[in-house]
Amino acid sequence: MARKVAVLVAGSWGTALASVLADKEMDVVIWTRNESQRDEINQLHHNDRFLPGVTLSPNLTATTDMQEAMNGAEAVVIVAPSAAVREVARQLRPYWTEDMLVVHATKGFEIESLKRISTVISEELGCDEGRIVVLSGPSHAEEVVKRCPTTVVVAALDESQAIRAQDLFMNPYFRVYTNRDMVGVEVAGALKNIIALGAGMSDGLGFGDNAKAALLTRGLAEITRIGAEMGANPLTFAGLAGVGDLVVTATSRHSRNWRAGYMLGEGKKLDTVLSSMGMVVEGIRTTKVAHTISRKLNVQMPITQQLYQVLFEDLDPRTAVEALMGRDKKTEMELMSIETWETWHK
Amino acid sequence: MARKVAVLVAGSWGTALASVLADKEMDVVIWTRNESQRDEINQLHHNDRFLPGVTLSPNLTATTDMQEAMNGAEAVVIVAPSAAVREVARQLRPYWTEDMLVVHATKGFEIESLKRISTVISEELGCDEGRIVVLSGPSHAEEVVKRCPTTVVVAALDESQAIRAQDLFMNPYFRVYTNRDMVGVEVAGALKNIIALGAGMSDGLGFGDNAKAALLTRGLAEITRIGAEMGANPLTFAGLAGVGDLVVTATSRHSRNWRAGYMLGEGKKLDTVLSSMGMVVEGIRTTKVAHTISRKLNVQMPITQQLYQVLFEDLDPRTAVEALMGRDKKTEMELMSIETWETWHK
Repeated sequence: MARKVAVLVAGSWGTALASVLADKEMDVVIWTRNESQRDEINQLHHNDRFLPGVTLSPNLTATTDMQEAMNGAEAVVIVAPSAAVREVARQLRPYWTEDMLVVHATKGFEIESLKRISTVISEELGCDEGRIVVLSGPSHAEEVVKRCPTTVVVAALDESQAIRAQDLFMNPYFRVYTNRDMVGVEVAGALKNIIALGAGMSDGLGFGDNAKAALLTRGLAEITRIGAEMGANPLTFAGLAGVGDLVVTATSRHSRNWRAGYMLGEGKKLDTVLSSMGMVVEGIRTTKVAHTISRKLNVQMPITQQLYQVLFEDLDPRTAVEALMGRDKKTEMELMSIETWETWHK
Repeated sequence: MARKVAVLVAGSWGTALASVLADKEMDVVIWTRNESQRDEINQLHHNDRFLPGVTLSPNLTATTDMQEAMNGAEAVVIVAPSAAVREVARQLRPYWTEDMLVVHATKGFEIESLKRISTVISEELGCDEGRIVVLSGPSHAEEVVKRCPTTVVVAALDESQAIRAQDLFMNPYFRVYTNRDMVGVEVAGALKNIIALGAGMSDGLGFGDNAKAALLTRGLAEITRIGAEMGANPLTFAGLAGVGDLVVTATSRHSRNWRAGYMLGEGKKLDTVLSSMGMVVEGIRTTKVAHTISRKLNVQMPITQQLYQVLFEDLDPRTAVEALMGRDKKTEMELMSIETWETWHK
């Protein structure tokens, strides 16, 4: 009998991860609330709203019945938008058992509580957070379903769960690395969307490659700084969930965050941008969260600060960039404390 | 009287750095061996071979006489190709005095000796290596001469020299950070050209954004690994000279290294690529050097290894990428030793 995996829900990234597993001859069931999407996947092997033109594997089916999705599954992969994760995990709880692997690939924070996604899921499942695995990295869904070479990282405090996830997903075009820094992978994956938004804005202003590279690098420095303060290993931000995902999100027209930023740079207002996107732009929500966290932890995040003002206080994007260029002379690195380092070398 | 600075020689990056200084009302003299280039700069304010279509500042003049270039200069900026640096520094020696600031912006190593550029310069000037400043970062010359916002890093063991260089160059569109990790900035700037070559190759093969981001990130991990072994601070590789320059070089069609890699990916042979480029491709020389250093220091550099075989042993690029994807399961980080860390926290 084929191994069975459940995927919640049927967005572009969920469907792409389901395809990776279906290519390994697994029986993959996607859970969705949308009956016409279910029928489209089951009857036509298409999910055209999220992955137009792609024909899905026949090993991949869909259901609107959570019990049917979970029955006999050895693993569940949660890929809901950050705003929907708590509700999805709550619905999952009655069908989830302790032996099941739980992987999530949702980027962001719970906006009201500032909690990380793995915290939200473990609260709803009533399990130890250490057994939740996060999957992240530079991976456009559109390329994964075409079997283009892709690398990702999986992290969990309980290393055996991360290795289980590595074994589950790894195939000849999908290379999976492990990392024990769950917090770093989760925070990097969420916060890089802010920087992608900023990079799009720089491009929309017509500032060139040097300015964009500056924004990516100094943006990386500031999300690393806040990440370390939240308990992450700074080196995780130089890895696939940080630099890798940042590069792919900030330099590609596939990216919603980049596109939203681009429109802002061209002078469009936030309302116009949001209504023209049609899908959630995680980077906008995340800028709000990061702005709050940076004040709470008293960590400087100059790029996030300027973006926040562009998004929510009507600051002109060009003025924001000038403010960033005109700051005092600085050294490149505010090194992390030796205490942080020792935490990562126990 | 205006402050005077000498720039050696008149390539695209040398001319762009000279323009930054000329915009600060300095008297900038570029030294070149080429008389017609000298006349073109002095009479037409153009350097069309290297910066086509750009009109240079009248504060910027050229000479073929090293003594004339150096006479009364407070600083000298060396921007020769890596293969020419020793000879240029040797010619400079009679005119250089201890009070002059020395900045170099040359990327690469001396191929025969495997020495860093600052070592080569200090040997020829007969001065302490600690007073040489390296300038690096994400900076296409074509954008700098158009005054697009740009950030760079300057590093020296003697921090007062780095601060002098920061004061010299910083202006409203050219933001300069300091860093005390001279080795890291120099090694990152040189080795990133290898990864840019690899990224071009991946694009030439048509592999997509996910593959390129993977190559950049895992490439960054391997140049960080060898850099740390050579005495660099790993975090420098997450900064402007590492990630920043890597992003700008590997994702832009301005870059010679990317273009050379792209042609290799398309299936062209090295001879064809070299003859069609017209200018030096530092990444090809650097791959050879890094291959030798990695064997000497016994550090794994799988991407460099595969590129070396493509360049010099006729390996098919597609086979090289498949070999990289098919390696054993790995964790993402081989953390640096606590000893390395402590070196950077004294």
